[in-house]
Amino acid sequence: MSSVKKMVVDWKGNLRFDSRNEKGLTVSIDVPKDHGGEETALSPTENLLASLAACTSIGVLGILKKKRQNVTDYAVEVTAEKREDPPPRVFTKIHLKYKIKGENLSSQAVETAIKLSEEKYCAVGEMLKKSVEITSSFEIQ
Amino acid sequence: MSSVKKMVVDWKGNLRFDSRNEKGLTVSIDVPKDHGGEETALSPTENLLASLAACTSIGVLGILKKKRQNVTDYAVEVTAEKREDPPPRVFTKIHLKYKIKGENLSSQAVETAIKLSEEKYCAVGEMLKKSVEITSSFEIQ
Repeated sequence: MSSVKKMVVDWKGNLRFDSRNEKGLTVSIDVPKDHGGEETALSPTENLLASLAACTSIGVLGILKKKRQNVTDYAVEVTAEKREDPPPRVFTKIHLKYKIKGENLSSQAVETAIKLSEEKYCAVGEMLKKSVEITSSFEIQ
Repeated sequence: MSSVKKMVVDWKGNLRFDSRNEKGLTVSIDVPKDHGGEETALSPTENLLASLAACTSIGVLGILKKKRQNVTDYAVEVTAEKREDPPPRVFTKIHLKYKIKGENLSSQAVETAIKLSEEKYCAVGEMLKKSVEITSSFEIQ
């Protein structure tokens, strides 16, 4: 079973682009000043990192909720190694460090949630992992 | 030569996440209502399509500028086929349709710019193409 997703990307001058989904929601993408942009929004590769971390996080929080774990605070630190030369400037490694706070959180439940989300549910990670080494760790705070 | 990029992703409740780069620029990511989110921003996979199209577009417009082509309007229509079942819900195919307007644009210059950008410069496409079939076409308007 498959579905079709459509988006429209509009040029907003210089190197800035607004991308709109079918419901009218948009995201702006720009380029850093030292690469000729105006730095009004994340770059394409930064946006890719945001997509990856949000994707795994949706799974992690969804699974923890099902396991009746009460998460009160949650963040991910993303560290990515980027090859600068030669182009294309791809990420060679991405590390996701999950930092989770909650009431009586089970370390085992957190570990399983991260593993399941990363290996089974996160589509962005699945599409990247043939090209990029993706690793993760977690800290219960 | 490589560099390190860091980002922090903060949970904003339910399934919404704000991702911040080192310069303080942020992007919000949410989930559609029929998947439990509040639909305040693009989903992770929509954001990935936006990243890909902006990435190739930066190259296309940069190359056309170097070739002294005067582009006056520019958009990309993205059509992606998504496997819905089983998870993860990955894209199996992505098509980028470039729609370019300008003064006396050379069709050959446009074709070369797209090819060069997609094959040589765009890092997002490079990281995805081992998993996803990415094709493109263009129309000079």
